[in-house]
Amino acid sequence: MATVDYVEYDDASPEVRQVYDDIMTTRQVDWVNNFWKALAVQPELLKSTWLRVKTVMAPGALDALTKELIYVAVSVTNGCQYCINSHTAAARKKGMSEAMLSELMAVVGMANQTNALASGFQIEIDEAFRNGGRATG
Amino acid sequence: MATVDYVEYDDASPEVRQVYDDIMTTRQVDWVNNFWKALAVQPELLKSTWLRVKTVMAPGALDALTKELIYVAVSVTNGCQYCINSHTAAARKKGMSEAMLSELMAVVGMANQTNALASGFQIEIDEAFRNGGRATG
Amino acid sequence: MATVDYVEYDDASPEVRQVYDDIMTTRQVDWVNNFWKALAVQPELLKSTWLRVKTVMAPGALDALTKELIYVAVSVTNGCQYCINSHTAAARKKGMSEAMLSELMAVVGMANQTNALASGFQIEIDEAFRNGGRATG
Amino acid sequence: MATVDYVEYDDASPEVRQVYDDIMTTRQVDWVNNFWKALAVQPELLKSTWLRVKTVMAPGALDALTKELIYVAVSVTNGCQYCINSHTAAARKKGMSEAMLSELMAVVGMANQTNALASGFQIEIDEAFRNGGRATG
Amino acid sequence: MATVDYVEYDDASPEVRQVYDDIMTTRQVDWVNNFWKALAVQPELLKSTWLRVKTVMAPGALDALTKELIYVAVSVTNGCQYCINSHTAAARKKGMSEAMLSELMAVVGMANQTNALASGFQIEIDEAFRNGGRATG
Amino acid sequence: MATVDYVEYDDASPEVRQVYDDIMTTRQVDWVNNFWKALAVQPELLKSTWLRVKTVMAPGALDALTKELIYVAVSVTNGCQYCINSHTAAARKKGMSEAMLSELMAVVGMANQTNALASGFQIEIDEAFRNGGRATG
Repeated sequence: MATVDYVEYDDASPEVRQVYDDIMTTRQVDWVNNFWKALAVQPELLKSTWLRVKTVMAPGALDALTKELIYVAVSVTNGCQYCINSHTAAARKKGMSEAMLSELMAVVGMANQTNALASGFQIEIDEAFRNGGRATG
Repeated sequence: MATVDYVEYDDASPEVRQVYDDIMTTRQVDWVNNFWKALAVQPELLKSTWLRVKTVMAPGALDALTKELIYVAVSVTNGCQYCINSHTAAARKKGMSEAMLSELMAVVGMANQTNALASGFQIEIDEAFRNGGRATG
Repeated sequence: MATVDYVEYDDASPEVRQVYDDIMTTRQVDWVNNFWKALAVQPELLKSTWLRVKTVMAPGALDALTKELIYVAVSVTNGCQYCINSHTAAARKKGMSEAMLSELMAVVGMANQTNALASGFQIEIDEAFRNGGRATG
Repeated sequence: MATVDYVEYDDASPEVRQVYDDIMTTRQVDWVNNFWKALAVQPELLKSTWLRVKTVMAPGALDALTKELIYVAVSVTNGCQYCINSHTAAARKKGMSEAMLSELMAVVGMANQTNALASGFQIEIDEAFRNGGRATG
Repeated sequence: MATVDYVEYDDASPEVRQVYDDIMTTRQVDWVNNFWKALAVQPELLKSTWLRVKTVMAPGALDALTKELIYVAVSVTNGCQYCINSHTAAARKKGMSEAMLSELMAVVGMANQTNALASGFQIEIDEAFRNGGRATG
Repeated sequence: MATVDYVEYDDASPEVRQVYDDIMTTRQVDWVNNFWKALAVQPELLKSTWLRVKTVMAPGALDALTKELIYVAVSVTNGCQYCINSHTAAARKKGMSEAMLSELMAVVGMANQTNALASGFQIEIDEAFRNGGRATG
């Protein structure tokens, strides 16, 4: 159903195959998911997106699972079916329990509700919350 | 600028004051932020929302800071200024470092980008990702 | 702060003035709000949008107040500050009480929450709800 | 396709069954829809969400049908397929005619259009619309 | 799966047929797509929407292909499956190459990412960008 | 009001200054806008985002102005004030006339309206539009 042809490994250029190989190695899987096969129609888009995802999702100040949970939260808010499914799967693989998934959804639901209430009533930002509570001296 | 009058503590009914007191006690602060003062126009809305927020945001399978990060991620995706500021402040209070904030935004930005790409190309869900990777056997 | 110049009545072409006059007559006010003054940079955009708003918002199978409430609900979900303020004002003028406003926001908040939960868990449409419950014989 | 297992009545705990019974009694139906069966993975989430929906959607200052129309308007704006179908069905059951549905969609479409125009031109809030037209004395 | 019955040409009133004929003539096709068949439940909604689409999408200061690209960009950001597919098809018909589609998606993805970053950090509008860079003299 | 400190040129590390210099050279301006000063709190985020923006927004199969128009369309749909202002300014600089801006907004408004209608009625994708009209033979 995609609006572009997927580029399969066997049909891929060496440049695209290199990215596919890196995806499989990094994720320790032996297949490439449709998202990357679609981006591969423009090798530059594939490569830059993958390198950025690889960097951004690697553990840093935030661990890898927390990053996946954040990813799912955004995807749910945008209603992106592909991303909800793929990143819920990724989160499970990284250790998300069913209890964590439920709590994640409870927070996402609550945030969407209170976002609407804050906008709906056009509530003013409290002095203490300005700049995200940043000390401004 | 809010579209309703804020209910100040001194003008509040005993029922509303009880909620305000619980907010201040739970958060260990001596003031109530505008969000609750606006909800207080309908005491039932105030009370049920607060009790739910209190439950949902309490540590469980996910810790309190992770929940705040998820809250911010949703608020950013919805573009809710009040919520971005108030929950960034809350996250900082719960220990979010500047490095964590940067990584949070990097993940939120990346997720919004790839959500658009997945929708834009109408990518089909891979077999392995169906049901969010849930074992269905 | 608008990104285009407002077209004031005194500077407007006869074509634009005619629309402004119709807006003021229809709404029984003696001024034109900024929204229309901005659209007036393209008279055709002004005219077609106004004629459509006038038709769509007129009482029909749904009364005028219900239509305003629906308008506010959409504006809140989109986070459009101008529209939230202008249509909350319009709804008040058409009879929305403070209790109605509170209930409106409670429903809007609840809908945003459950929308997120339904997307988050990727819930399948029940047989009875298919086609929006339309009899399909 | 849901990312969690549905909890069927026969497999449900007494706590979950109690909620299911209340849903069926309140709605005068003999089945429970998938949304609730998914939330039931976390009984506390099921119970609190249902009690809140039951309260919020009950007739008050706004009648039950108006509340459903508002619910549909939000769901359309968010593009939530499950919610659009389930609440369009609910609205029909509560008396929404085909003419009402058409007018509802006309208003929702119009609001989404003018929200974009107001944001696109960054239109400033008119003095008379500030605070949603609230008398500020 | 639509929530309303499609109005087929053979069952359509003369008023609806006239619009259908105009759609087919304007687009040089011999069929009418589902979108219009659904709007036809309310002939006035069908007619006004079609006339507006016809006017807005016609070449003017912007050419027809550029307008389609903009349409697709909005549809992707809203995650509207019907619109993404129908307008990607329309853009292809008007000359969009695969390279253009890839670049379009790259820009849409980038814009969604930086929108999130700008909101996430609550960045202030630079003096030079105020009023969209409009000379204010 | 930003939730992070802006990194000014004089206080920037050589790594950050190098990016700032490239931004100013590429855009032929002598100042750096707030967006980049905020991203600079995480030099890696600044650098990767800038390099990506520079590549994506450069003329290719689509010219630079068309890309800016697409950027604005997404920003309007997301309601991102900073991005609407900064990219409207950028588009003007690249040759967008007032007539083009009006037509851009007319298309964006129309797309947001019809997106809502297509979702609202849950319209099925026509056979000819599947895969975005891609030949599948």
